[in-house]
Amino acid sequence: MRYDGREHNELRPVTMELDFITHPEGSVLITVGGTKVICNASIEDRVPPFLRGEGKGWVTAEYSMLPRATNQRTIRESSKGKISGRTMEIQRLIGRALRAVVDLEKLGERTIWIDCDVIQADGGTRTASITGAFTAMTLAVGRLVKNGSLKEIPITDFLAATSVGIDQEQGLMLDLNYQEDSSAEVDMNVVMTGEGRFVELQGTGEEATFSKNELNGLLVLAEKGIMELIEKQKEVLGDLVADIQQ
Amino acid sequence: MRYDGREHNELRPVTMELDFITHPEGSVLITVGGTKVICNASIEDRVPPFLRGEGKGWVTAEYSMLPRATNQRTIRESSKGKISGRTMEIQRLIGRALRAVVDLEKLGERTIWIDCDVIQADGGTRTASITGAFTAMTLAVGRLVKNGSLKEIPITDFLAATSVGIDQEQGLMLDLNYQEDSSAEVDMNVVMTGEGRFVELQGTGEEATFSKNELNGLLVLAEKGIMELIEKQKEVLGDLVADIQQ
Amino acid sequence: MRYDGREHNELRPVTMELDFITHPEGSVLITVGGTKVICNASIEDRVPPFLRGEGKGWVTAEYSMLPRATNQRTIRESSKGKISGRTMEIQRLIGRALRAVVDLEKLGERTIWIDCDVIQADGGTRTASITGAFTAMTLAVGRLVKNGSLKEIPITDFLAATSVGIDQEQGLMLDLNYQEDSSAEVDMNVVMTGEGRFVELQGTGEEATFSKNELNGLLVLAEKGIMELIEKQKEVLGDLVADIQQ
Amino acid sequence: MRYDGREHNELRPVTMELDFITHPEGSVLITVGGTKVICNASIEDRVPPFLRGEGKGWVTAEYSMLPRATNQRTIRESSKGKISGRTMEIQRLIGRALRAVVDLEKLGERTIWIDCDVIQADGGTRTASITGAFTAMTLAVGRLVKNGSLKEIPITDFLAATSVGIDQEQGLMLDLNYQEDSSAEVDMNVVMTGEGRFVELQGTGEEATFSKNELNGLLVLAEKGIMELIEKQKEVLGDLVADIQQ
Amino acid sequence: MRYDGREHNELRPVTMELDFITHPEGSVLITVGGTKVICNASIEDRVPPFLRGEGKGWVTAEYSMLPRATNQRTIRESSKGKISGRTMEIQRLIGRALRAVVDLEKLGERTIWIDCDVIQADGGTRTASITGAFTAMTLAVGRLVKNGSLKEIPITDFLAATSVGIDQEQGLMLDLNYQEDSSAEVDMNVVMTGEGRFVELQGTGEEATFSKNELNGLLVLAEKGIMELIEKQKEVLGDLVADIQQ
Amino acid sequence: MRYDGREHNELRPVTMELDFITHPEGSVLITVGGTKVICNASIEDRVPPFLRGEGKGWVTAEYSMLPRATNQRTIRESSKGKISGRTMEIQRLIGRALRAVVDLEKLGERTIWIDCDVIQADGGTRTASITGAFTAMTLAVGRLVKNGSLKEIPITDFLAATSVGIDQEQGLMLDLNYQEDSSAEVDMNVVMTGEGRFVELQGTGEEATFSKNELNGLLVLAEKGIMELIEKQKEVLGDLVADIQQ
Repeated sequence: MRYDGREHNELRPVTMELDFITHPEGSVLITVGGTKVICNASIEDRVPPFLRGEGKGWVTAEYSMLPRATNQRTIRESSKGKISGRTMEIQRLIGRALRAVVDLEKLGERTIWIDCDVIQADGGTRTASITGAFTAMTLAVGRLVKNGSLKEIPITDFLAATSVGIDQEQGLMLDLNYQEDSSAEVDMNVVMTGEGRFVELQGTGEEATFSKNELNGLLVLAEKGIMELIEKQKEVLGDLVADIQQ
Repeated sequence: MRYDGREHNELRPVTMELDFITHPEGSVLITVGGTKVICNASIEDRVPPFLRGEGKGWVTAEYSMLPRATNQRTIRESSKGKISGRTMEIQRLIGRALRAVVDLEKLGERTIWIDCDVIQADGGTRTASITGAFTAMTLAVGRLVKNGSLKEIPITDFLAATSVGIDQEQGLMLDLNYQEDSSAEVDMNVVMTGEGRFVELQGTGEEATFSKNELNGLLVLAEKGIMELIEKQKEVLGDLVADIQQ
Repeated sequence: MRYDGREHNELRPVTMELDFITHPEGSVLITVGGTKVICNASIEDRVPPFLRGEGKGWVTAEYSMLPRATNQRTIRESSKGKISGRTMEIQRLIGRALRAVVDLEKLGERTIWIDCDVIQADGGTRTASITGAFTAMTLAVGRLVKNGSLKEIPITDFLAATSVGIDQEQGLMLDLNYQEDSSAEVDMNVVMTGEGRFVELQGTGEEATFSKNELNGLLVLAEKGIMELIEKQKEVLGDLVADIQQ
Repeated sequence: MRYDGREHNELRPVTMELDFITHPEGSVLITVGGTKVICNASIEDRVPPFLRGEGKGWVTAEYSMLPRATNQRTIRESSKGKISGRTMEIQRLIGRALRAVVDLEKLGERTIWIDCDVIQADGGTRTASITGAFTAMTLAVGRLVKNGSLKEIPITDFLAATSVGIDQEQGLMLDLNYQEDSSAEVDMNVVMTGEGRFVELQGTGEEATFSKNELNGLLVLAEKGIMELIEKQKEVLGDLVADIQQ
Repeated sequence: MRYDGREHNELRPVTMELDFITHPEGSVLITVGGTKVICNASIEDRVPPFLRGEGKGWVTAEYSMLPRATNQRTIRESSKGKISGRTMEIQRLIGRALRAVVDLEKLGERTIWIDCDVIQADGGTRTASITGAFTAMTLAVGRLVKNGSLKEIPITDFLAATSVGIDQEQGLMLDLNYQEDSSAEVDMNVVMTGEGRFVELQGTGEEATFSKNELNGLLVLAEKGIMELIEKQKEVLGDLVADIQQ
Repeated sequence: MRYDGREHNELRPVTMELDFITHPEGSVLITVGGTKVICNASIEDRVPPFLRGEGKGWVTAEYSMLPRATNQRTIRESSKGKISGRTMEIQRLIGRALRAVVDLEKLGERTIWIDCDVIQADGGTRTASITGAFTAMTLAVGRLVKNGSLKEIPITDFLAATSVGIDQEQGLMLDLNYQEDSSAEVDMNVVMTGEGRFVELQGTGEEATFSKNELNGLLVLAEKGIMELIEKQKEVLGDLVADIQQ
């Protein structure tokens, strides 16, 4: 039994509130246990310089935390004047993950800006961001289809992410909260599509290593969790789902 | 009649949700019409270098907007690597305003960090931030009293803020939304205590000027609005109110 | 009686030396008591991007202090690599104040750059900057008229600024020097036109508040001082005055 | 057959020149095909603030490329005034990977600084950096043992890294050069110990996804390559090897 | 004959106004033709970290130009957020030059901060800065002697600087103004003591070269000019001169 | 006799390895005693904005040191986020020196980027950089001639640099190593052409001064050393030499 009473293969409670903020084309407040992230998707009718004139679109992401998202107040990156390595790693990951399920040619010369702002953190903020950002992005492009700007939703599959890890006492665990994440020796983030294909796999020993058997155990847990998250996405997105090939 | 049907001396609907985020000592989500600001107050048990050993505390504020708080996505200040003049002006204003009603000696060698993060903007974000920040700060110091760290609440009066302005067509108006703010020729932010004393008065002609009579009319509107906001604060803070001298 | 022997409603001695520096289109060294500011106005034949093609001009200001303008040497902002909040607030104020008396359409697609460099500081540097900058700007556009680039001076009224304040011992005071500014509880900067209309009003309680009666007393003092400053401007500008409507 | 004539499971030629630079405690020039990285290890007799007084050491890494390491000259990060997200990701990876095989308690209150400077790039610079950095670090701590500062080498196992990938035409490949890396759809970096345990696994679909079978195939290739790299390390390190537990 | 009617070996008119600004320990406004520099010397009772506890002092300099010191307005370095290479070169030069005639042991654990702010530029700003800075520094340490903090003036000789250059049409010239500096092919700055010893010699061909004979001719011109500048320094410093060994 | 056994007028051993790195148009590893610098020359087919449309080219340089080029690890300038004054001075010097022997009209609208990266430092890194950079630049433009892009090598003479200095014990010395440089009282860098004309002369007293006789002695030493360095350049460049006028 885990600290918070969950089974080893059990996700924390997950909710997604659509249209949380009114201005963005797609806006979702995702809650995964004590982790809350506002995921906004903005559509811009142009692409970055390196893609101009290529007839295809782009998806890019930014990630940030409010200073009191954490237990101890953290200093703002705007005050420090630079973005930390951790933040850069995460926003590169989110953008890359989403691009794997977007047909950039079908999107056309548009950029989808994803903003993931963590307002409360309790572990797994990057994976919650990906799961929420996929939902916000789908909302945003769904509106492009509804208003006739796009013929069909240029998203090829569902996409969600979760973390798995190994702790000496607890063994293998799905969806680590902050306390579990801090004590885990191995930590792995997995991003997967609705068809069960990998998009991103980042496993890290924190001053530790892991075997092939442990890797396989972790991947089984991750797939179970991700499939449940995708069910949630289908549920909240409702009719928009039909357009996404399964 | 104004664009949104309000009377000239009418505030927009105001709500304050206490404990919106779990980590901060005081957390309030304030909604003023379409403007939504997360106001978090953090208590730190030390003071900035210029106050060390003086036996008194400090209150300081930071202010930021999510990129899609606005209708057009705005670039993050952390990405630009520097904080804009507008942001600096606002966070200096918030800190200064709050310090006017805090007895820094009674606070003792502690710093109250105020974080105002605008998640949705529709005019008046700085005055909503002050009104919400006062509430969050009161919650936070109220807890210091409850847990015995402080003998009494070191806050000398209530504090709220609103904007007033003049538009050629509409005349004088209370609590401008974004559309009104954009077309107003004169814009004034007023911060006032429960006793009706001024803490801060910032009136600006935008390529325009204003007379003494107009100034007096604006101050009457502002006082009416601020007294209503303070009633709201008393309502949501409930029992904590008794400790603040009136 | 004040520390320096002045009456409560008495300005410090004021001088303005025109053409202090040879390169700028308009250059004024303003001295207000111990405060000395070089105010240079430069005319550039283009406007910032947000105004291009609109057929109107712009006025913008920068403000800085030499390291030893102050009693203790202060570190240069270029060495720190960023501009302080105080500097930003002041340069935004100067630009906004001047724009209120410039007919930007008549100015045409030109930018007036105002540089206020404090070489010696003894309180009131921002208000001295505004008073001097107005004079330098008038000199600069006067030359555009003389050389035929402009038909008439696109300035609609005179403009000057001063500070007023309240101190527990001294009561209400006009034109605070550094010592008075440091001990004042309430500090107000007022920018006003020749017709006695407000352009900017910034009143601030420093860990203090002020009543409506005190506000009115301060505004009377400020108006008296500003009218005297405007007389000085008319005196030094001489013939250029006729072109500015009164 | 691959573009450069290699088999799918064949590494490029690898050399490591020890003591390439004279000042560092450990210095290695590693060459993997056309990729050349100077890996320097420096020992500092103190630890970062978060570890002070804990009786354990730290390993941290920095990574950079000369402007003409690449085919097109790239602008220096020092000229841009900030470090790119890619650089940060890589240097965090190198530090984390090395810490997995260092017994930080045995290292004592020392920091090992790893500098990986790519002087010529042809794909796989981050994995070559890890393989070379392990060798430089071992040299450096070996000298601490020789001069009596440490009783034994605080390294628990060998460590090397390589990349594997999938290309539509070529299928699965070991040790991608720049041309292969650019056209690969799936790219995975694997860091592994001498005992065949994973330290880090980063698999990424570039606008693509991969199946569990493909993952398994890639891991087999990676292990083969890494074991060959570790043989090279043992060869060049010679006598130092005996101290590292197998 | 030169553009401004001077002989080839003739300086421009030079004046030094002592105590130009009231706050600094030493303040000089130096005018060399159309070049005007405020040189302020500040004494601080501590030294930079690398000198602490060594019983000796330090001299360091900063240099800046007002935006309209030049004919075209130049952007502030504080706005760009970084100091240009030219500025750094000049401020390093000024500090190094002054240190050559200061007995740092006799100065004791103090730092002399030199601020050279060019308010009007017409060539030779760095050499005018050195000549003016020496005078300001001497004033400042002279006051330390007068108030008993120092027994004697810790300055070993006079110091001044000028520029010389070669132009195809004009030949060799002393003390170049901006126009001459722009067209010169060879430009040399010379810093020399009262005894005629070199402190700094920086000769540069601007897309050109120069012979040994030309070098000798330039050095003769420079020495003549510097000796005249030192006479000026003795004149304005008056009684303080006696303490400086000749 | 000097610390390392050299005569006072003796250079350290010098080698230049051509084509050290494969990507740049010209690449040289220069070794001068313990100082090793990778000098890469890149040709870009456009010029900086200030030269566009003028039909002439440009040469610019950047200089950097690896963190462990020095005995104590130095922090990277990219980590500090800004380039030091020393680095700026050196890269401005290198660019200026090379431009003196390049016929920019003959070069045409191209930029030659010089990158000097010090991988091991033992004094004289800036002069070694100039000597090596000239060689790399000649290689690069020689290739433009070979591939028909240029009719002739647009280099007007050979160019090399060395340092000379004065030490109280050792007297005058040629080509100072780190130890000698640290204790020298006078330090001079000389850049000279094959015809023995000066390009740059930078003599500096480090808290010391020097006489005209000492200057002459230093220039004799410098010329001897530079002529030997130019012989080395001719030797390694071989056939390319014929095209450079002597």
